[in-house]
Amino acid sequence: MLILMYQHTIHISFGDCDPVGLTFYPNYFKWFDATYHAFLTSRGLDYKTLADKLDCLGTGLIDCGASFRSPAKAGDVMVLRMTINNWREKTLRLDYIGMIKDRTVLEGFEVRGLFKYINNDLKAAPIAPLRQLLDSTTDPVQAS
Amino acid sequence: MLILMYQHTIHISFGDCDPVGLTFYPNYFKWFDATYHAFLTSRGLDYKTLADKLDCLGTGLIDCGASFRSPAKAGDVMVLRMTINNWREKTLRLDYIGMIKDRTVLEGFEVRGLFKYINNDLKAAPIAPLRQLLDSTTDPVQAS
Amino acid sequence: MLILMYQHTIHISFGDCDPVGLTFYPNYFKWFDATYHAFLTSRGLDYKTLADKLDCLGTGLIDCGASFRSPAKAGDVMVLRMTINNWREKTLRLDYIGMIKDRTVLEGFEVRGLFKYINNDLKAAPIAPLRQLLDSTTDPVQAS
Amino acid sequence: MLILMYQHTIHISFGDCDPVGLTFYPNYFKWFDATYHAFLTSRGLDYKTLADKLDCLGTGLIDCGASFRSPAKAGDVMVLRMTINNWREKTLRLDYIGMIKDRTVLEGFEVRGLFKYINNDLKAAPIAPLRQLLDSTTDPVQAS
Repeated sequence: MLILMYQHTIHISFGDCDPVGLTFYPNYFKWFDATYHAFLTSRGLDYKTLADKLDCLGTGLIDCGASFRSPAKAGDVMVLRMTINNWREKTLRLDYIGMIKDRTVLEGFEVRGLFKYINNDLKAAPIAPLRQLLDSTTDPVQAS
Repeated sequence: MLILMYQHTIHISFGDCDPVGLTFYPNYFKWFDATYHAFLTSRGLDYKTLADKLDCLGTGLIDCGASFRSPAKAGDVMVLRMTINNWREKTLRLDYIGMIKDRTVLEGFEVRGLFKYINNDLKAAPIAPLRQLLDSTTDPVQAS
Repeated sequence: MLILMYQHTIHISFGDCDPVGLTFYPNYFKWFDATYHAFLTSRGLDYKTLADKLDCLGTGLIDCGASFRSPAKAGDVMVLRMTINNWREKTLRLDYIGMIKDRTVLEGFEVRGLFKYINNDLKAAPIAPLRQLLDSTTDPVQAS
Repeated sequence: MLILMYQHTIHISFGDCDPVGLTFYPNYFKWFDATYHAFLTSRGLDYKTLADKLDCLGTGLIDCGASFRSPAKAGDVMVLRMTINNWREKTLRLDYIGMIKDRTVLEGFEVRGLFKYINNDLKAAPIAPLRQLLDSTTDPVQAS
């Protein structure tokens, strides 16, 4: 079983917050996406390399969601932890948890697929090649 | 039963799209939020008026999610339809569907609460006052 | 002389504003860019068509700026007027003025070039082909 | 003379880039603003503390601009250096330079004022109190 984890630190800024003074919530998804791409980059797999290696357009979104537990505001430093441990035939699930110190800010997820254009239609292809690619770049200790 | 509907048109621009050429997905949530606020504004209830009338910080997010059905790209005109028909004691659920012509782009939702600071903690208060406020500004025909 | 004008309406939303309650200023540049692309699209020239026709990467930024005259906030409707009347050998200058009713919110500009990869370097190519393309799609009355 | 410098590191992500694959330019201004606020925070002056101490709404934008020297793309790490050495009666000028290794990506600036509501109009007040506040929180060595 391939379990992958990655941690990204977010410095929440004035411009990330709304007139109420709290983080404008779509930004959390921007940070989910940034964490996923930072993880890929840490494996030498920026989106272009990944697309080339897997002959696909990219690993796009199928589903996503978030539950907000407590607010975050300008100046807060949020640690976003990503875990991948759910692989299906055509999808990959990424779970996220955002913490400010020991307080949970939000929990969320992304379900991604490997998209290709097949007869002009964007279709999800089998995810196994991505899994193999991540497996081959995973340090055995880290993968446990 | 109070059912509310609102429709917002989104012109997807170059800057809303990612290097793959498709809409960067957090923007959909930005447009959900913009649709909700356009709806409130259409009732004379911008966020400040609402906060004043209900003596709250605002109607913040508790939960949200989206399922992506087909891609959208620069130049596309997406119609976002919002429906509110799910009221609980402390929450309000908004369902969204985004269409480009007769093609579904995504379905999503927001669960919002009426937030107040109670003893320095942000807490969801009963939602009934918001419901009454929207009810009183609803044209009976439209509310059917 | 080719003078081009275009007008775009911006509905400023809650999420476009910062904790002070005013428009977060980078959004104005997002709206400049959206106005330019809406103008191109109105000529049948989305960024891909333009890139194909002119064999370039796109019309990227060389310089930009803005002077802020008065604030804008959630719920405001700003009309953004773009004027192109300054063509140099390798650049195109777009002037913007944003108005809320008869109040000026900001004045700004973008200087854009036609970018191509030349020996792996991104270089500005002569702008004349873009000018001819816009000229040929311009209604004589509108061009005056 | 009070010269202040601050440096902020930006990890450019997939979602910061446009369909051409380069940084969507309004993001550079977002990063200017984030650098300025990170600088203030490093002095214990988040926007609320600053507003309270100076009895103002905040230090808003009067003017800004940027010149783009070379492109930046997903995965790039850009160091943004801010310098403040230009104080006028009612304004403060911040100069920015963005570098990826030893390559200049852009140079830009912000002119900010200390805004207060005076008779319902947003007006720039004398900047001296901000200067004194920054002076008093500046390590003499750093200020040189």
